[in-house]
Amino acid sequence: MSGILYGVGLGPGDAELMTLKAARLISGAKVVAYPALAGGSSFARSIAAALIRDDVREIMISVPMKVERGPAQAAYDAAADEITAILETGLDVVVLCEGDPFFYGSFMYIYARIKPNFQTEIVPGITAMTASAAALGLPLAARNEMLSVIPGPLSDAELRTKISAADSVAIMKVGRHLGRIRDVITDLGLLDQAHYIERATLPEQQKKPLANAPDPAPYFSMILITKEADPWL
Amino acid sequence: MSGILYGVGLGPGDAELMTLKAARLISGAKVVAYPALAGGSSFARSIAAALIRDDVREIMISVPMKVERGPAQAAYDAAADEITAILETGLDVVVLCEGDPFFYGSFMYIYARIKPNFQTEIVPGITAMTASAAALGLPLAARNEMLSVIPGPLSDAELRTKISAADSVAIMKVGRHLGRIRDVITDLGLLDQAHYIERATLPEQQKKPLANAPDPAPYFSMILITKEADPWL
Repeated sequence: MSGILYGVGLGPGDAELMTLKAARLISGAKVVAYPALAGGSSFARSIAAALIRDDVREIMISVPMKVERGPAQAAYDAAADEITAILETGLDVVVLCEGDPFFYGSFMYIYARIKPNFQTEIVPGITAMTASAAALGLPLAARNEMLSVIPGPLSDAELRTKISAADSVAIMKVGRHLGRIRDVITDLGLLDQAHYIERATLPEQQKKPLANAPDPAPYFSMILITKEADPWL
Repeated sequence: MSGILYGVGLGPGDAELMTLKAARLISGAKVVAYPALAGGSSFARSIAAALIRDDVREIMISVPMKVERGPAQAAYDAAADEITAILETGLDVVVLCEGDPFFYGSFMYIYARIKPNFQTEIVPGITAMTASAAALGLPLAARNEMLSVIPGPLSDAELRTKISAADSVAIMKVGRHLGRIRDVITDLGLLDQAHYIERATLPEQQKKPLANAPDPAPYFSMILITKEADPWL
């Protein structure tokens, strides 16, 4: 019997926002894998740290931050080979994933490589999007409202079209695009409804009106645009 | 000192998909409130049942399923009055919310009434959307893809425009609109990429290609449309 690959969502950063299922799987895991920056620091591992067994085997998926695809593909190939070898011995592998494994996560690159040959199970996690809405006290969507999740690196023209078409908007991967995104939002007359948050649920969380947000923003930041409260309320 | 209003997300149905924070707050709660159908059954309460204290005080928010707004508004007003009276005694009130409190939840009607006068805290929950993607084994979005969350009751024309504009789509509140939504998706040439799931994460979960989905669908159902895997994988 081969082992099972688990993709386990850890939520946005506060370890208490892990699910009971994630906590059970991590506490019992003999092998964990996680993405790490080139230097070795791993946000995912830091969220789960208190639950990881002392005798665990760890697989660090160190992905180079380069524009070309080749080096990252090679890193995922190597990690998938290492995971495959362990699954073949019958041990399960728990991959630690920031947020949710299937919501803008890098887990899917491992998943795509392993799924054809092994049993897999995905444990959903709290997304930074819902955690940010909670921290800001801003309902994301209700009734027949449309919510769009938009990556910040899109072009100005794309941002303009997609933001205009939705009732509520979450803009991910803001980072160095903040100034440009803010200009588009301002042009659309939505600046007063736009909120900025960085490092949601962590002790260093910052939130403010988008008008006052730092430019550039850190990587873990988000912009939420919500409509005014409906008279229904 | 007044009490605090907690809006606590419970996730999509599997009690193990509750967060550690939700479990802690519910286990400690002296007062819980939850939405219930007219007959008294409450999906939210059923998810949390094993954690609710025997000596708890319960507030049932029984909202009539009518098209007119008046009766529902009156029900939320009455529940908010009852919650207010408890918060004024210094006790906290934990509102049990299916999924996430701010993601198409009815909690926001209570929140809007209580927030002006009391401290509030929202605990995000796993959404049916991410849980459905996990159960289907379908990544929702990656890199610079746009994800749109679209309510099924929108008109055919609106559905067509909004589905076309996104890379990935989650259609909520499918129910009796299933046939109509499926026709739009078929016309757009997306039927092969469309997946149906009902009662995600519950023992009675059903998932199938949208082509084979029941019409009408039950209330707790969803359609996910995802693009083909990127060559990046």
